[in-house]
Amino acid sequence: MRIRVLGAAAGGGFPQWNCGCANCADVRRGDPALSPRSQDSIAVSADGDRWVLLNASPDIRSQVEAFPALRPRAPRHSPIAGIVLTNGDLDHVLGLFSLRESQPLVLFATAAVRAGLGANVFLHTLERFDGQLVFRALVPGQPIEACGLELLPFAVAGKRPLHLERLGAPTPEDNIGLVVRDAAGGSVAYVPGAAALDAETRARLESVDVLFFDGTFWSSDELPRLALGRARAEDMAHLPIDGAAGSLAILRQLRTRRKIYTHINNTNPILRLGAPERRAVEDAGIEVAVDGLELAP
Amino acid sequence: MRIRVLGAAAGGGFPQWNCGCANCADVRRGDPALSPRSQDSIAVSADGDRWVLLNASPDIRSQVEAFPALRPRAPRHSPIAGIVLTNGDLDHVLGLFSLRESQPLVLFATAAVRAGLGANVFLHTLERFDGQLVFRALVPGQPIEACGLELLPFAVAGKRPLHLERLGAPTPEDNIGLVVRDAAGGSVAYVPGAAALDAETRARLESVDVLFFDGTFWSSDELPRLALGRARAEDMAHLPIDGAAGSLAILRQLRTRRKIYTHINNTNPILRLGAPERRAVEDAGIEVAVDGLELAP
Repeated sequence: MRIRVLGAAAGGGFPQWNCGCANCADVRRGDPALSPRSQDSIAVSADGDRWVLLNASPDIRSQVEAFPALRPRAPRHSPIAGIVLTNGDLDHVLGLFSLRESQPLVLFATAAVRAGLGANVFLHTLERFDGQLVFRALVPGQPIEACGLELLPFAVAGKRPLHLERLGAPTPEDNIGLVVRDAAGGSVAYVPGAAALDAETRARLESVDVLFFDGTFWSSDELPRLALGRARAEDMAHLPIDGAAGSLAILRQLRTRRKIYTHINNTNPILRLGAPERRAVEDAGIEVAVDGLELAP
Repeated sequence: MRIRVLGAAAGGGFPQWNCGCANCADVRRGDPALSPRSQDSIAVSADGDRWVLLNASPDIRSQVEAFPALRPRAPRHSPIAGIVLTNGDLDHVLGLFSLRESQPLVLFATAAVRAGLGANVFLHTLERFDGQLVFRALVPGQPIEACGLELLPFAVAGKRPLHLERLGAPTPEDNIGLVVRDAAGGSVAYVPGAAALDAETRARLESVDVLFFDGTFWSSDELPRLALGRARAEDMAHLPIDGAAGSLAILRQLRTRRKIYTHINNTNPILRLGAPERRAVEDAGIEVAVDGLELAP
Protein backbone atom coordinates (compact mmCIF):
# COMPACT_ATOMS: atom_id res chain seq x y z
CA MET A 1 0.00 0.00 0.00
CA ARG A 2 1.13 3.53 -0.70
CA ILE A 3 0.09 6.38 1.55
CA ARG A 4 0.59 10.10 1.00
CA VAL A 5 -0.33 12.81 3.46
CA LEU A 6 -1.94 15.47 1.27
CA GLY A 7 -2.64 17.82 4.16
CA ALA A 8 -1.88 17.58 7.88
CA ALA A 9 -3.58 20.69 9.27
CA ALA A 10 -6.97 21.02 10.93
CA GLY A 11 -9.70 23.23 9.44
CA GLY A 12 -8.35 26.59 8.37
CA GLY A 13 -4.93 25.18 7.52
CA PHE A 14 -1.56 26.45 8.68
CA PRO A 15 -1.23 29.38 8.54
CA GLN A 16 -4.92 30.25 8.93
CA TRP A 17 -6.25 33.24 6.95
CA ASN A 18 -7.34 35.32 9.98
CA CYS A 19 -4.82 34.14 12.56
CA GLY A 20 -1.74 36.02 13.67
CA CYS A 21 -0.78 33.73 16.57
CA ALA A 22 2.93 33.07 17.11
CA ASN A 23 2.84 29.88 15.02
CA CYS A 24 1.07 31.56 12.10
CA ALA A 25 3.19 34.71 12.23
CA ASP A 26 6.42 32.71 12.38
CA VAL A 27 5.54 30.29 9.59
CA ARG A 28 4.62 33.27 7.38
CA ARG A 29 8.06 34.77 7.87
CA GLY A 30 9.73 31.48 6.95
CA ASP A 31 10.90 30.35 10.39
CA PRO A 32 12.66 27.02 9.68
CA ALA A 33 11.14 25.50 12.84
CA LEU A 34 7.70 25.58 11.23
CA SER A 35 6.28 24.16 7.99
CA PRO A 36 3.04 25.25 6.32
CA ARG A 37 0.36 22.58 6.14
CA SER A 38 -2.79 22.34 4.08
CA GLN A 39 -6.04 20.87 5.39
CA ASP A 40 -6.51 17.28 6.47
CA SER A 41 -6.56 14.64 3.74
CA ILE A 42 -4.68 11.43 3.01
CA ALA A 43 -4.38 9.49 -0.25
CA VAL A 44 -4.05 5.68 -0.23
CA SER A 45 -3.49 3.26 -3.09
CA ALA A 46 -3.14 -0.49 -3.45
CA ASP A 47 -1.34 -0.28 -6.79
CA GLY A 48 0.01 3.27 -7.11
CA ASP A 49 -2.33 3.71 -10.06
CA ARG A 50 -5.81 4.27 -8.64
CA TRP A 51 -5.99 6.38 -5.49
CA VAL A 52 -8.59 6.75 -2.78
CA LEU A 53 -8.74 10.05 -0.92
CA LEU A 54 -9.59 9.98 2.74
CA ASN A 55 -11.48 13.28 3.02
CA ALA A 56 -11.69 16.06 0.43
CA SER A 57 -10.15 19.24 1.78
CA PRO A 58 -10.74 22.76 0.46
CA ASP A 59 -7.06 22.69 -0.56
CA ILE A 60 -7.59 19.71 -2.88
CA ARG A 61 -6.58 21.55 -6.04
CA SER A 62 -3.11 22.39 -4.77
CA GLN A 63 -2.83 18.98 -3.07
CA VAL A 64 -3.42 17.21 -6.41
CA GLU A 65 -0.86 19.36 -8.20
CA ALA A 66 1.72 18.82 -5.42
CA PHE A 67 1.56 15.02 -5.84
CA PRO A 68 2.35 13.82 -9.39
CA ALA A 69 0.58 10.47 -8.85
CA LEU A 70 -2.75 12.31 -8.59
CA ARG A 71 -2.37 14.31 -11.79
CA PRO A 72 -4.29 13.33 -14.95
CA ARG A 73 -2.60 11.03 -17.47
CA ALA A 74 -4.89 11.79 -20.42
CA PRO A 75 -6.82 14.81 -21.74
CA ARG A 76 -9.68 13.99 -19.36
CA HIS A 77 -8.63 11.70 -16.54
CA SER A 78 -8.02 11.50 -12.84
CA PRO A 79 -6.28 8.81 -10.79
CA ILE A 80 -8.74 9.67 -7.98
CA ALA A 81 -10.95 6.59 -8.02
CA GLY A 82 -12.77 7.10 -4.73
CA ILE A 83 -13.31 9.60 -1.94
CA VAL A 84 -14.10 8.59 1.63
CA LEU A 85 -15.53 11.07 4.13
CA THR A 86 -14.96 10.57 7.86
CA ASN A 87 -17.50 13.24 8.84
CA GLY A 88 -19.33 16.27 7.48
CA ASP A 89 -16.85 18.92 8.62
CA LEU A 90 -16.28 21.58 6.00
CA ASP A 91 -12.54 20.99 6.00
CA HIS A 92 -13.32 17.39 4.99
CA VAL A 93 -16.03 17.87 2.38
CA LEU A 94 -15.61 21.22 0.61
CA GLY A 95 -13.03 19.79 -1.77
CA LEU A 96 -15.75 17.66 -3.38
CA PHE A 97 -17.09 20.78 -5.06
CA SER A 98 -13.72 21.42 -6.65
CA LEU A 99 -14.02 18.06 -8.45
CA ARG A 100 -17.01 19.08 -10.52
CA GLU A 101 -15.68 19.03 -14.07
CA SER A 102 -17.86 16.10 -15.18
CA GLN A 103 -15.53 13.43 -13.83
CA PRO A 104 -17.30 10.35 -12.40
CA LEU A 105 -16.67 10.08 -8.64
CA VAL A 106 -17.33 7.29 -6.17
CA LEU A 107 -18.14 8.70 -2.76
CA PHE A 108 -17.98 6.59 0.41
CA ALA A 109 -19.82 8.10 3.36
CA THR A 110 -22.25 7.15 6.09
CA ALA A 111 -25.91 7.87 5.53
CA ALA A 112 -25.69 10.70 8.08
CA VAL A 113 -22.80 12.41 6.30
CA ARG A 114 -24.50 11.88 2.94
CA ALA A 115 -27.69 13.50 4.26
CA GLY A 116 -25.70 16.52 5.40
CA LEU A 117 -24.22 16.96 1.92
CA GLY A 118 -27.66 16.56 0.36
CA ALA A 119 -28.93 19.58 2.28
CA ASN A 120 -26.92 21.77 -0.07
CA VAL A 121 -27.96 22.61 -3.63
CA PHE A 122 -24.24 22.75 -4.40
CA LEU A 123 -24.40 18.96 -4.64
CA HIS A 124 -26.31 19.26 -7.94
CA THR A 125 -23.01 20.30 -9.52
CA LEU A 126 -21.94 16.66 -9.12
CA GLU A 127 -25.21 15.38 -10.63
CA ARG A 128 -24.76 16.61 -14.19
CA PHE A 129 -25.28 13.16 -15.64
CA ASP A 130 -26.38 9.74 -14.38
CA GLY A 131 -23.47 8.12 -12.64
CA GLN A 132 -21.37 11.24 -12.08
CA LEU A 133 -21.55 10.78 -8.32
CA VAL A 134 -21.96 7.20 -7.18
CA PHE A 135 -22.66 6.93 -3.47
CA ARG A 136 -21.54 3.88 -1.52
CA ALA A 137 -22.82 3.71 2.05
CA LEU A 138 -20.37 3.24 4.88
CA VAL A 139 -21.82 1.37 7.84
CA PRO A 140 -19.70 1.23 11.00
CA GLY A 141 -18.34 -2.27 11.47
CA GLN A 142 -18.99 -3.36 7.89
CA PRO A 143 -15.98 -3.67 5.57
CA ILE A 144 -16.31 -2.43 2.00
CA GLU A 145 -14.01 -2.74 -1.01
CA ALA A 146 -12.51 0.28 -2.76
CA CYS A 147 -9.99 -0.10 -5.62
CA GLY A 148 -8.30 -3.17 -4.21
CA LEU A 149 -8.38 -1.89 -0.64
CA GLU A 150 -10.61 -2.99 2.19
CA LEU A 151 -12.09 -0.11 4.14
CA LEU A 152 -13.41 -0.80 7.61
CA PRO A 153 -15.31 2.18 9.05
CA PHE A 154 -15.91 2.35 12.78
CA ALA A 155 -17.79 4.86 14.92
CA VAL A 156 -15.65 7.31 16.87
CA ALA A 157 -16.85 9.69 19.56
CA GLY A 158 -17.29 13.01 17.83
CA LYS A 159 -19.69 15.81 17.15
CA ARG A 160 -21.90 16.79 14.28
CA PRO A 161 -20.50 19.96 12.67
CA LEU A 162 -22.19 23.21 13.56
CA HIS A 163 -23.83 23.69 10.17
CA LEU A 164 -25.60 20.32 10.52
CA GLU A 165 -26.77 20.66 14.11
CA ARG A 166 -30.29 21.64 13.06
CA LEU A 167 -30.65 18.56 10.83
CA GLY A 168 -31.68 16.18 13.59
CA ALA A 169 -30.33 14.14 16.46
CA PRO A 170 -26.68 13.09 16.48
CA THR A 171 -25.90 9.50 15.45
CA PRO A 172 -22.82 7.27 15.76
CA GLU A 173 -22.50 7.68 11.99
CA ASP A 174 -21.67 11.38 12.31
CA ASN A 175 -17.98 10.69 12.83
CA ILE A 176 -15.99 7.61 11.89
CA GLY A 177 -12.48 6.28 11.80
CA LEU A 178 -11.18 3.96 9.11
CA VAL A 179 -8.93 0.94 8.94
CA VAL A 180 -7.62 0.42 5.40
CA ARG A 181 -5.97 -2.89 4.44
CA ASP A 182 -4.47 -4.09 1.19
CA ALA A 183 -4.23 -7.70 -0.05
CA ALA A 184 -0.53 -7.86 0.83
CA GLY A 185 -1.30 -7.27 4.50
CA GLY A 186 -0.40 -3.59 4.77
CA SER A 187 -2.71 -1.58 6.99
CA VAL A 188 -3.33 1.92 8.19
CA ALA A 189 -5.84 3.48 10.58
CA TYR A 190 -7.01 7.04 10.10
CA VAL A 191 -8.81 8.81 12.93
CA PRO A 192 -8.53 12.56 12.30
CA GLY A 193 -11.22 13.51 14.80
CA ALA A 194 -11.83 11.80 18.13
CA ALA A 195 -13.43 13.07 21.32
CA ALA A 196 -12.43 9.92 23.20
CA LEU A 197 -10.54 6.69 22.75
CA ASP A 198 -12.25 3.66 24.29
CA ALA A 199 -10.76 0.20 24.87
CA GLU A 200 -12.35 -1.31 21.75
CA THR A 201 -10.92 1.44 19.56
CA ARG A 202 -7.50 1.18 21.20
CA ALA A 203 -7.43 -2.54 20.41
CA ARG A 204 -8.41 -1.81 16.82
CA LEU A 205 -5.64 0.76 16.47
CA GLU A 206 -3.08 -1.78 17.68
CA SER A 207 -4.01 -4.11 14.80
CA VAL A 208 -2.53 -1.85 12.11
CA ASP A 209 0.96 -0.93 10.88
CA VAL A 210 0.42 2.81 10.84
CA LEU A 211 -1.94 5.01 12.82
CA PHE A 212 -2.90 8.58 11.96
CA PHE A 213 -4.62 10.16 14.95
CA ASP A 214 -6.33 13.43 15.87
CA GLY A 215 -3.62 15.91 16.88
CA THR A 216 -5.82 19.00 16.73
CA PHE A 217 -5.03 20.55 20.11
CA TRP A 218 -2.19 20.16 22.59
CA SER A 219 -4.32 21.25 25.55
CA SER A 220 -7.97 21.66 26.47
CA ASP A 221 -7.61 25.40 26.92
CA GLU A 222 -5.38 26.06 23.91
CA LEU A 223 -7.67 28.65 22.27
CA PRO A 224 -8.86 30.41 25.47
CA ARG A 225 -5.28 30.66 26.73
CA LEU A 226 -4.26 32.44 23.51
CA ALA A 227 -7.45 34.57 23.67
CA LEU A 228 -8.43 33.16 20.28
CA GLY A 229 -11.77 31.71 21.30
CA ARG A 230 -13.81 30.48 24.22
CA ALA A 231 -14.21 26.86 23.14
CA ARG A 232 -12.18 24.15 24.82
CA ALA A 233 -10.87 21.19 22.84
CA GLU A 234 -13.61 19.01 24.31
CA ASP A 235 -16.30 21.47 23.17
CA MET A 236 -15.10 20.79 19.63
CA ALA A 237 -14.99 17.03 20.21
CA HIS A 238 -11.21 16.76 20.09
CA LEU A 239 -9.33 14.80 22.71
CA PRO A 240 -6.35 17.00 23.63
CA ILE A 241 -2.84 15.54 23.39
CA ASP A 242 -1.64 16.62 26.83
CA GLY A 243 -2.90 15.67 30.28
CA ALA A 244 -3.40 12.51 32.30
CA ALA A 245 -6.38 11.53 30.10
CA GLY A 246 -4.96 13.01 26.90
CA SER A 247 -4.15 11.10 23.73
CA LEU A 248 -0.38 11.11 24.30
CA ALA A 249 -0.76 9.06 27.49
CA ILE A 250 -2.92 6.58 25.57
CA LEU A 251 -1.03 6.44 22.27
CA ARG A 252 2.36 5.93 23.91
CA GLN A 253 1.04 2.60 25.28
CA LEU A 254 -0.19 1.33 21.90
CA ARG A 255 2.02 -1.26 20.23
CA THR A 256 1.28 0.14 16.76
CA ARG A 257 4.55 0.39 14.81
CA ARG A 258 4.14 3.96 13.56
CA LYS A 259 1.91 6.48 15.32
CA ILE A 260 1.44 9.88 13.69
CA TYR A 261 -0.51 12.94 14.78
CA THR A 262 -2.41 14.70 12.01
CA HIS A 263 -5.29 17.22 11.65
CA ILE A 264 -3.14 19.63 13.66
CA ASN A 265 -4.55 23.04 14.53
CA ASN A 266 -2.49 26.13 13.66
CA THR A 267 -2.17 27.01 17.36
CA ASN A 268 -0.74 23.64 18.42
CA PRO A 269 2.79 23.94 19.89
CA ILE A 270 3.79 20.52 18.46
CA LEU A 271 4.04 22.24 15.08
CA ARG A 272 7.27 23.89 16.23
CA LEU A 273 10.48 21.85 15.96
CA GLY A 274 12.34 21.91 19.25
CA ALA A 275 9.39 23.06 21.36
CA PRO A 276 9.01 21.11 24.63
CA GLU A 277 5.60 19.85 23.51
CA ARG A 278 7.05 18.62 20.21
CA ARG A 279 9.86 16.88 22.06
CA ALA A 280 7.38 15.24 24.43
CA VAL A 281 5.52 13.76 21.45
CA GLU A 282 8.72 12.60 19.77
CA ASP A 283 10.09 11.15 23.01
CA ALA A 284 6.92 9.05 23.21
CA GLY A 285 7.70 7.61 19.76
CA ILE A 286 4.98 9.54 17.98
CA GLU A 287 5.50 11.49 14.76
CA VAL A 288 3.92 14.74 13.60
CA ALA A 289 2.52 14.60 10.08
CA VAL A 290 3.52 17.08 7.43
CA ASP A 291 2.21 17.58 3.90
CA GLY A 292 3.96 15.26 1.48
CA LEU A 293 4.85 12.54 3.99
CA GLU A 294 4.79 9.19 2.18
CA LEU A 295 4.66 5.69 3.65
CA ALA A 296 4.46 2.18 2.23
CA PRO A 297 3.27 -0.16 5.00
CA MET B 1 -7.23 52.75 -5.60
CA ARG B 2 -5.15 49.62 -5.40
CA ILE B 3 -6.10 46.51 -7.34
CA ARG B 4 -4.61 43.04 -7.08
CA VAL B 5 -5.52 40.09 -9.27
CA LEU B 6 -5.77 37.20 -6.81
CA GLY B 7 -6.69 34.66 -9.45
CA ALA B 8 -7.10 34.95 -13.23
CA ALA B 9 -8.35 31.48 -14.18
CA ALA B 10 -11.89 30.29 -14.81
CA GLY B 11 -13.50 27.57 -12.69
CA GLY B 12 -11.15 24.65 -12.14
CA GLY B 13 -8.05 26.85 -12.27
CA PHE B 14 -4.96 26.38 -14.39
CA PRO B 15 -3.92 23.59 -14.46
CA GLN B 16 -7.25 21.89 -13.82
CA TRP B 17 -7.25 18.76 -11.63
CA ASN B 18 -8.63 16.37 -14.29
CA CYS B 19 -7.28 18.01 -17.44
CA GLY B 20 -4.31 16.85 -19.45
CA CYS B 21 -4.77 19.21 -22.41
CA ALA B 22 -1.62 20.71 -23.97
CA ASN B 23 -1.86 23.87 -21.84
CA CYS B 24 -2.30 21.91 -18.59
CA ALA B 25 0.38 19.35 -19.43
CA ASP B 26 2.87 22.03 -20.44
CA VAL B 27 2.29 24.28 -17.42
CA ARG B 28 2.76 21.25 -15.15
CA ARG B 29 6.17 20.59 -16.65
CA GLY B 30 7.21 24.19 -16.14
CA ASP B 31 7.06 25.46 -19.72
CA PRO B 32 8.10 29.13 -19.43
CA ALA B 33 5.44 30.13 -21.97
CA LEU B 34 2.71 29.30 -19.45
CA SER B 35 1.99 30.47 -15.88
CA PRO B 36 -0.29 28.70 -13.40
CA ARG B 37 -3.35 30.67 -12.38
CA SER B 38 -5.75 30.24 -9.50
CA GLN B 39 -9.47 30.85 -9.77
CA ASP B 40 -11.07 34.20 -10.55
CA SER B 41 -10.96 36.85 -7.83
CA ILE B 42 -9.75 40.44 -7.54
CA ALA B 43 -9.01 42.51 -4.45
CA VAL B 44 -9.60 46.28 -4.42
CA SER B 45 -8.83 48.88 -1.77
CA ALA B 46 -9.28 52.62 -1.38
CA ASP B 47 -6.60 52.96 1.29
CA GLY B 48 -4.42 49.83 1.08
CA ASP B 49 -5.66 48.95 4.57
CA ARG B 50 -9.17 47.54 4.18
CA TRP B 51 -9.74 45.35 1.14
CA VAL B 52 -12.84 44.28 -0.73
CA LEU B 53 -12.74 40.97 -2.58
CA LEU B 54 -14.60 40.71 -5.85
CA ASN B 55 -15.64 37.05 -5.69
CA ALA B 56 -14.45 34.39 -3.24
CA SER B 57 -12.66 31.61 -5.09
CA PRO B 58 -12.01 28.09 -3.78
CA ASP B 59 -8.31 29.07 -3.84
CA ILE B 60 -8.85 31.91 -1.37
CA ARG B 61 -6.57 30.48 1.31
CA SER B 62 -3.51 30.43 -0.92
CA GLN B 63 -4.54 33.74 -2.51
CA VAL B 64 -4.56 35.44 0.91
CA GLU B 65 -1.16 34.02 1.82
CA ALA B 66 0.31 35.05 -1.56
CA PHE B 67 -0.59 38.72 -0.97
CA PRO B 68 0.87 40.20 2.24
CA ALA B 69 -1.71 43.02 2.35
CA LEU B 70 -4.46 40.43 2.99
CA ARG B 71 -2.73 38.69 5.88
CA PRO B 72 -3.84 39.29 9.49
CA ARG B 73 -2.10 42.02 11.51
CA ALA B 74 -3.20 40.84 14.97
CA PRO B 75 -3.89 37.51 16.67
CA ARG B 76 -7.43 37.56 15.22
CA HIS B 77 -7.79 39.93 12.30
CA SER B 78 -8.34 40.13 8.57
CA PRO B 79 -7.92 43.09 6.22
CA ILE B 80 -10.81 41.57 4.20
CA ALA B 81 -13.58 44.06 4.97
CA GLY B 82 -16.08 43.02 2.32
CA ILE B 83 -16.80 40.38 -0.28
CA VAL B 84 -18.78 41.04 -3.45
CA LEU B 85 -20.24 38.21 -5.52
CA THR B 86 -20.88 38.70 -9.24
CA ASN B 87 -22.90 35.49 -9.54
CA GLY B 88 -23.50 32.16 -7.81
CA ASP B 89 -20.91 30.12 -9.71
CA LEU B 90 -19.01 27.75 -7.45
CA ASP B 91 -15.67 29.21 -8.50
CA HIS B 92 -16.95 32.56 -7.20
CA VAL B 93 -18.63 31.54 -3.94
CA LEU B 94 -16.94 28.45 -2.47
CA GLY B 95 -14.19 30.53 -0.89
CA LEU B 96 -16.77 32.01 1.51
CA PHE B 97 -16.81 28.73 3.40
CA SER B 98 -13.07 28.95 3.93
CA LEU B 99 -13.62 32.20 5.85
CA ARG B 100 -15.56 30.58 8.66
CA GLU B 101 -13.34 31.07 11.69
CA SER B 102 -15.73 33.44 13.49
CA GLN B 103 -14.57 36.53 11.61
CA PRO B 104 -17.33 39.06 10.84
CA LEU B 105 -17.89 39.35 7.09
CA VAL B 106 -19.86 41.82 4.99
CA LEU B 107 -21.27 40.15 1.90
CA PHE B 108 -22.51 42.14 -1.09
CA ALA B 109 -24.71 40.12 -3.45
CA THR B 110 -27.96 40.39 -5.33
CA ALA B 111 -31.06 38.86 -3.79
CA ALA B 112 -30.91 36.06 -6.38
CA VAL B 113 -27.31 35.14 -5.57
CA ARG B 114 -28.06 35.38 -1.84
CA ALA B 115 -31.01 33.01 -2.25
CA GLY B 116 -28.78 30.49 -4.01
CA LEU B 117 -26.31 30.53 -1.12
CA GLY B 118 -29.16 30.18 1.36
CA ALA B 119 -30.19 26.88 -0.22
CA ASN B 120 -27.12 25.30 1.38
CA VAL B 121 -26.88 24.36 5.07
CA PHE B 122 -23.17 25.12 4.74
CA LEU B 123 -24.15 28.77 5.14
CA HIS B 124 -24.91 28.14 8.83
CA THR B 125 -21.14 27.96 9.37
CA LEU B 126 -21.13 31.74 8.81
CA GLU B 127 -24.01 32.27 11.23
CA ARG B 128 -22.29 31.32 14.49
CA PHE B 129 -23.19 34.61 16.14
CA ASP B 130 -25.35 37.62 15.36
CA GLY B 131 -23.54 39.80 12.90
CA GLN B 132 -21.01 37.23 11.67
CA LEU B 133 -22.37 37.52 8.14
CA VAL B 134 -23.89 40.87 7.28
CA PHE B 135 -25.66 40.85 3.94
CA ARG B 136 -25.90 43.99 1.85
CA ALA B 137 -28.13 43.73 -1.19
CA LEU B 138 -26.78 44.66 -4.59
CA VAL B 139 -29.41 46.03 -6.95
CA PRO B 140 -28.38 46.56 -10.57
CA GLY B 141 -28.07 50.26 -11.29
CA GLN B 142 -27.91 51.32 -7.64
CA PRO B 143 -24.51 52.38 -6.27
CA ILE B 144 -23.52 51.22 -2.80
CA GLU B 145 -20.60 52.18 -0.55
CA ALA B 146 -17.99 49.65 0.61
CA CYS B 147 -14.93 50.71 2.62
CA GLY B 148 -14.48 54.04 0.89
CA LEU B 149 -15.26 52.65 -2.54
CA GLU B 150 -18.40 53.09 -4.58
CA LEU B 151 -19.66 49.89 -6.13
CA LEU B 152 -22.05 50.12 -9.05
CA PRO B 153 -23.51 46.73 -9.98
CA PHE B 154 -25.10 46.28 -13.40
CA ALA B 155 -26.88 43.33 -15.00
CA VAL B 156 -24.86 41.38 -17.56
CA ALA B 157 -26.18 38.68 -19.87
CA GLY B 158 -25.32 35.42 -18.19
CA LYS B 159 -26.70 32.19 -16.95
CA ARG B 160 -27.70 30.80 -13.60
CA PRO B 161 -25.21 28.12 -12.58
CA LEU B 162 -26.29 24.53 -13.07
CA HIS B 163 -26.73 23.80 -9.36
CA LEU B 164 -29.26 26.65 -9.06
CA GLU B 165 -31.30 25.92 -12.19
CA ARG B 166 -34.03 24.19 -10.20
CA LEU B 167 -34.42 27.17 -7.86
CA GLY B 168 -36.74 29.14 -10.11
CA ALA B 169 -36.79 31.34 -13.18
CA PRO B 170 -33.66 33.22 -14.23
CA THR B 171 -33.48 36.92 -13.35
CA PRO B 172 -31.22 39.80 -14.46
CA GLU B 173 -29.74 39.61 -10.95
CA ASP B 174 -28.21 36.18 -11.62
CA ASN B 175 -25.09 37.71 -13.14
CA ILE B 176 -23.70 41.19 -12.71
CA GLY B 177 -20.71 43.30 -13.57
CA LEU B 178 -19.28 45.97 -11.29
CA VAL B 179 -17.85 49.44 -11.66
CA VAL B 180 -15.74 50.38 -8.63
CA ARG B 181 -14.71 54.00 -8.05
CA ASP B 182 -12.67 55.66 -5.33
CA ALA B 183 -12.92 59.24 -4.08
CA ALA B 184 -9.77 60.24 -5.97
CA GLY B 185 -11.39 59.38 -9.30
CA GLY B 186 -9.78 55.98 -9.96
CA SER B 187 -12.10 53.42 -11.48
CA VAL B 188 -12.20 49.81 -12.59
CA ALA B 189 -14.85 47.64 -14.21
CA TYR B 190 -14.97 43.91 -13.52
CA VAL B 191 -17.04 41.66 -15.79
CA PRO B 192 -15.71 38.12 -15.39
CA GLY B 193 -18.70 36.46 -17.05
CA ALA B 194 -20.62 37.87 -20.01
CA ALA B 195 -22.72 36.14 -22.65
CA ALA B 196 -23.07 39.37 -24.64
CA LEU B 197 -21.94 42.97 -24.61
CA ASP B 198 -24.68 45.46 -25.51
CA ALA B 199 -24.26 49.14 -26.36
CA GLU B 200 -25.21 50.34 -22.88
CA THR B 201 -22.60 48.09 -21.28
CA ARG B 202 -19.96 49.08 -23.81
CA ALA B 203 -20.54 52.75 -22.96
CA ARG B 204 -20.25 51.94 -19.27
CA LEU B 205 -16.98 50.12 -19.81
CA GLU B 206 -15.53 53.14 -21.60
CA SER B 207 -16.13 55.27 -18.51
CA VAL B 208 -13.45 53.54 -16.41
CA ASP B 209 -9.65 53.49 -16.27
CA VAL B 210 -9.26 49.72 -16.21
CA LEU B 211 -11.51 46.97 -17.51
CA PHE B 212 -11.32 43.30 -16.53
CA PHE B 213 -13.40 41.27 -18.96
CA ASP B 214 -14.49 37.65 -19.47
CA GLY B 215 -11.67 35.84 -21.29
CA THR B 216 -12.95 32.32 -20.63
CA PHE B 217 -12.81 30.89 -24.15
CA TRP B 218 -10.98 31.84 -27.31
CA SER B 219 -13.53 30.18 -29.57
CA SER B 220 -17.09 28.89 -29.43
CA ASP B 221 -16.01 25.32 -30.08
CA GLU B 222 -12.93 25.31 -27.86
CA LEU B 223 -13.98 22.33 -25.72
CA PRO B 224 -15.61 20.22 -28.51
CA ARG B 225 -12.57 20.77 -30.75
CA LEU B 226 -10.28 19.39 -28.03
CA ALA B 227 -12.79 16.58 -27.35
CA LEU B 228 -13.06 17.83 -23.75
CA GLY B 229 -16.80 18.43 -23.73
CA ARG B 230 -19.82 19.06 -25.89
CA ALA B 231 -20.71 22.51 -24.62
CA ARG B 232 -19.96 25.55 -26.74
CA ALA B 233 -18.87 28.80 -25.12
CA GLU B 234 -22.36 30.23 -25.66
CA ASP B 235 -23.93 27.24 -23.89
CA MET B 236 -21.97 28.31 -20.82
CA ALA B 237 -22.92 31.98 -21.30
CA HIS B 238 -19.43 33.13 -22.24
CA LEU B 239 -18.90 35.37 -25.23
CA PRO B 240 -15.87 33.91 -27.01
CA ILE B 241 -12.89 36.15 -27.75
CA ASP B 242 -12.51 35.26 -31.41
CA GLY B 243 -14.88 35.76 -34.31
CA ALA B 244 -16.68 38.64 -35.99
CA ALA B 245 -19.03 38.98 -33.01
CA GLY B 246 -16.44 37.99 -30.40
CA SER B 247 -15.23 40.15 -27.54
CA LEU B 248 -11.91 40.99 -29.16
CA ALA B 249 -13.65 42.79 -32.03
CA ILE B 250 -15.69 44.76 -29.50
CA LEU B 251 -13.02 45.46 -26.88
CA ARG B 252 -10.46 46.70 -29.39
CA GLN B 253 -12.86 49.57 -30.21
CA LEU B 254 -13.34 50.64 -26.58
CA ARG B 255 -11.41 53.72 -25.52
CA THR B 256 -10.77 52.32 -22.03
CA ARG B 257 -7.11 52.92 -21.10
CA ARG B 258 -6.31 49.37 -19.91
CA LYS B 259 -8.29 46.36 -21.04
CA ILE B 260 -7.48 43.01 -19.48
CA TYR B 261 -8.88 39.53 -20.06
CA THR B 262 -9.45 37.48 -16.93
CA HIS B 263 -11.43 34.36 -15.85
CA ILE B 264 -9.44 32.45 -18.48
CA ASN B 265 -10.20 28.78 -19.01
CA ASN B 266 -7.32 26.29 -18.87
CA THR B 267 -7.87 25.39 -22.55
CA ASN B 268 -7.61 28.96 -23.86
CA PRO B 269 -4.69 29.45 -26.29
CA ILE B 270 -4.17 33.05 -25.08
CA LEU B 271 -2.56 31.55 -21.96
CA ARG B 272 0.51 30.66 -24.05
CA LEU B 273 3.07 33.42 -24.63
CA GLY B 274 3.90 33.67 -28.31
CA ALA B 275 0.82 31.78 -29.53
CA PRO B 276 -0.92 33.46 -32.49
CA GLU B 277 -4.07 33.93 -30.40
CA ARG B 278 -2.07 35.60 -27.63
CA ARG B 279 -0.40 37.87 -30.13
CA ALA B 280 -3.77 38.81 -31.64
CA VAL B 281 -4.98 39.90 -28.20
CA GLU B 282 -1.80 41.85 -27.47
CA ASP B 283 -1.80 43.46 -30.90
CA ALA B 284 -5.30 44.75 -30.12
CA GLY B 285 -3.91 46.45 -27.00
CA ILE B 286 -5.50 44.00 -24.58
CA GLU B 287 -3.63 42.34 -21.70
CA VAL B 288 -4.01 38.85 -20.27
CA ALA B 289 -4.34 38.79 -16.47
CA VAL B 290 -2.07 36.71 -14.32
CA ASP B 291 -2.17 36.03 -10.58
CA GLY B 292 -0.40 38.79 -8.68
CA LEU B 293 -0.92 41.56 -11.25
CA GLU B 294 -1.25 44.87 -9.38
CA LEU B 295 -2.60 48.17 -10.62
CA ALA B 296 -3.20 51.59 -9.09
CA PRO B 297 -5.63 53.50 -11.31
